[in-house]
Amino acid sequence: MTDNDNHKKQMKALQTEQNKKISEAQDPGRGLILVHTGDGKGKSSSAFGVIARALGWGHKVGVVQFIKGKWVTGERQFFAKFPDQLDWHTMGDGFTWNTQDKERDIEAAQAAFARAIEMMQSDKYELIVLDEINIALRYEYLNIENVIDGLKSRSNKTSVILTGRDAKPDLCEYADLVSEMREIKHPFKAGIKAQRGIDF
Amino acid sequence: MTDNDNHKKQMKALQTEQNKKISEAQDPGRGLILVHTGDGKGKSSSAFGVIARALGWGHKVGVVQFIKGKWVTGERQFFAKFPDQLDWHTMGDGFTWNTQDKERDIEAAQAAFARAIEMMQSDKYELIVLDEINIALRYEYLNIENVIDGLKSRSNKTSVILTGRDAKPDLCEYADLVSEMREIKHPFKAGIKAQRGIDF
Repeated sequence: MTDNDNHKKQMKALQTEQNKKISEAQDPGRGLILVHTGDGKGKSSSAFGVIARALGWGHKVGVVQFIKGKWVTGERQFFAKFPDQLDWHTMGDGFTWNTQDKERDIEAAQAAFARAIEMMQSDKYELIVLDEINIALRYEYLNIENVIDGLKSRSNKTSVILTGRDAKPDLCEYADLVSEMREIKHPFKAGIKAQRGIDF
Repeated sequence: MTDNDNHKKQMKALQTEQNKKISEAQDPGRGLILVHTGDGKGKSSSAFGVIARALGWGHKVGVVQFIKGKWVTGERQFFAKFPDQLDWHTMGDGFTWNTQDKERDIEAAQAAFARAIEMMQSDKYELIVLDEINIALRYEYLNIENVIDGLKSRSNKTSVILTGRDAKPDLCEYADLVSEMREIKHPFKAGIKAQRGIDF
């Protein structure tokens, strides 16, 4: 058997396996709940990549940012070009270590989540991103049961992505898919300044 | 000390720590090499999110897709709206288990990488995404030394993101930052059909 024949045989087996997976996969008939967590890079940016996908299919998208306040970011400047398809709400006063005021943080987070619930129940959106909501949950600015009840009350067609490190176990249990972004350590290469167009 | 005072103290410490990190961080004065690998979701989509960031800052972006061939995706439909800022090349005939022809796969991958080198050396792009190149490396359609030499020959201003599972150790060693996307298993929830606007 030649190398190419052998390759062909392997690839045929892989194709059969892929086709089996595809034919067995179910369409849940409802929007999915996705969680992006972990200490590595890519939690928010992959949510923004999914937004690009959804916009490409003509879907309507909502974003509520729970933490990043005043920071000017590439994603906000870019997605601001699509006001008809995308509603973007940045709540809060930025990082909680900047406000240093717990009451104000709690109010901002709860106002943001009230807005998120309104959007999730409106039946208008195919996709809603709750960016950095896991941080608000971690500091107990939001109650996990309330958040899960809010997700359960969403319109059937609406998928929701929740981002931020330290996702609560109850949220992961409820979610359809959980991805963990891990940082592979590079001791010599740490301490690189955040780069415009890459990190924000 | 009230709960809010205590919170304020903690947040002040956290702010000091953050500020220290920021002031110690270095700007490398050149584009970065980022690798997105692992078996979980989010490797390509976070690269697309970084593209949105870069476009938001007015940067010029190039994409070479090494594997995904004929598949119509939301990201391609969406990013096609920015022909002045973004050059998108999808090479190959799709998944290697569809072609089942090793010679054809190798030719396609090498043509794609030749295009990538041209773009990396052109001094035109702030960001280039080599999507699923790790798959081409894994099947040895491309040689890892050639790929690293190609990356080294890039224009000083160009950052490159390389995606795909099973990133080669030599590539991770050369990269500035490596993120691993891990799938957190959900035995009851596996087997959900790929969703338009989420997965593609």
